[in-house]
Amino acid sequence: MKVKDIGELRLIKDVIFPELDRIHSNRNVIIDRGDDAACVRLKKLAILTTDTFIEKVHFDPTYFTFSEIGYRTLVAALSDIAAMGGSPKFALVSIQIPPNLDANSVKELYSGMIRISKKFKLKIIGGDTVSSKTLGITVTIIGEGDRIVKRSGARLNDSIFVTGELGSSSFGLYLLNKSKFSSKDPYLIKRHKMPIPRIVEGKILAKSINSMIDLSDGLSTDLHHIIEESKVGAVIYKEKIPLHRSLKKIARRGNRDPYDFALYGGEDYELLFTAPRKEGSMISKEVRTKTGIKVTEIGTIFKKEEGVWLEANGKRIPLNPLGYDHFQHKLSTFQA
Amino acid sequence: MKVKDIGELRLIKDVIFPELDRIHSNRNVIIDRGDDAACVRLKKLAILTTDTFIEKVHFDPTYFTFSEIGYRTLVAALSDIAAMGGSPKFALVSIQIPPNLDANSVKELYSGMIRISKKFKLKIIGGDTVSSKTLGITVTIIGEGDRIVKRSGARLNDSIFVTGELGSSSFGLYLLNKSKFSSKDPYLIKRHKMPIPRIVEGKILAKSINSMIDLSDGLSTDLHHIIEESKVGAVIYKEKIPLHRSLKKIARRGNRDPYDFALYGGEDYELLFTAPRKEGSMISKEVRTKTGIKVTEIGTIFKKEEGVWLEANGKRIPLNPLGYDHFQHKLSTFQA
Repeated sequence: MKVKDIGELRLIKDVIFPELDRIHSNRNVIIDRGDDAACVRLKKLAILTTDTFIEKVHFDPTYFTFSEIGYRTLVAALSDIAAMGGSPKFALVSIQIPPNLDANSVKELYSGMIRISKKFKLKIIGGDTVSSKTLGITVTIIGEGDRIVKRSGARLNDSIFVTGELGSSSFGLYLLNKSKFSSKDPYLIKRHKMPIPRIVEGKILAKSINSMIDLSDGLSTDLHHIIEESKVGAVIYKEKIPLHRSLKKIARRGNRDPYDFALYGGEDYELLFTAPRKEGSMISKEVRTKTGIKVTEIGTIFKKEEGVWLEANGKRIPLNPLGYDHFQHKLSTFQA
Repeated sequence: MKVKDIGELRLIKDVIFPELDRIHSNRNVIIDRGDDAACVRLKKLAILTTDTFIEKVHFDPTYFTFSEIGYRTLVAALSDIAAMGGSPKFALVSIQIPPNLDANSVKELYSGMIRISKKFKLKIIGGDTVSSKTLGITVTIIGEGDRIVKRSGARLNDSIFVTGELGSSSFGLYLLNKSKFSSKDPYLIKRHKMPIPRIVEGKILAKSINSMIDLSDGLSTDLHHIIEESKVGAVIYKEKIPLHRSLKKIARRGNRDPYDFALYGGEDYELLFTAPRKEGSMISKEVRTKTGIKVTEIGTIFKKEEGVWLEANGKRIPLNPLGYDHFQHKLSTFQA
């Protein structure tokens, strides 16, 4: 049955609410439905972020299932909470639905949201449902934190660390878009479709690091944000950037430089942070032990003047922020 | 200059931030920009609501200026906070912008948001900016409250009250859509374009009433929400429903029943509440004295079984919830 045929109220009550009921209860939720607004109790500092995910701009429904779209919808905002060292608590989901969409697709979309919500004990407590030509979802996540880690805390002589490995997500997207690649490596594609926000890792790191950001726009762009907010200069050692072996293998087979994806490709949702080398190494080991995610030292804050350099083969060159701008991205990828 | 030509980062830094800078500072804001998420201190229960406002579905840009769209964007969510008896504190604004939109229109849009934000001491602390074919804005408002007023609190023998007057907003929309009306009454049109959420009134009322909702979908629909959540039955006395004299005059001149707009037209953003008659009358007087907004008793909770009746000329008939469903609304109004 199409969304326009069942109407908004029945869509909410018969399709969306049963999915939301699958989330665990939370005793700090005072009102979560049936009223004008939700009401919750927050005990610590509130961390707030919002993210919009639009069909044909942020995802192509031809290679995402609705469940994957639902999951993916929450990733960016969860990753923002991770980058502050916070714990996600509550979410509000506003969905724009084309009237001709099948109601079952809406159910699958929420089922994907529930899947990632359960993983991180996030409770969806409210939202809005509106009609639109284009499918789109805006999610607002409210988290809590004790020690908030800012982008502006990087200090001279800090080492620069990164969780996991870089470039896999954007290379997965590249594989999805380019039919000439016979190899559609499932690992790399999954890294694009269903990245795992580093919530657990961020909370461990928050105890003792100086600055942090999540890698949504690519290392070159996101490191610049740390540098601009902290007013320091950084050097990254290219060979130290962690790459997955599948990325290296498949990229080189197609004559593409895998480091381009690591430096300029976005959506890895790994955490980039700075800390004095000793503290950084210790907390990195703790992350590895507790989560299985490796942390790699890839550079240094080496001066007090703003700037980012890339060192490879003993030479340093300026590293410009070339992550994609959503507008340029859309124009080049989808309007061409 | 078009949005696609200046890019996302410059749009945010050069166009949006200067507008946001016009809002007063708030010492409970710990981080409001330049980081992965915002961070605030909340002292009471948190009230959360989100609302999406889409071009051609919720507003027609041919008769809204961008400043009016910006103002109007925040009304529904502010009104939700009012209906809980809360104080709005912080907002996150996610905006979907067509790449060909003039950057100056974005500036005007934010200027309208700032106008209403200032009025209610709301601080915009974060957001997202994405590209989309259709202009759309999703706003999440975080409020605080001491005593939260629910829809489910209506009790037998409560009187039913309403602030202001009803039907003016939907009649204003009707005037905008129907060119055959020579009279484009500025008061009624303003009531549609720039309704005033009853924040101050809601806070006063919250001290002593039993249940409350804001009138966004029309009296017939919204009263049903109170009735369903409270599991009681209500009767509304048609002649007591407050109408503005311009609505009465112009509607009758065009052979339209002004009460249809009051009962079934939405977007008045007045408050509907129930309280024992004595307490209700006293607090209504306090609202009138402190804000200048009159409050009218229009009905009674007269039995413990669910149902809504309309009494006119001594006869009672069932009052069905005929407020518009967004999907049906879109189909009938804009796709026809």
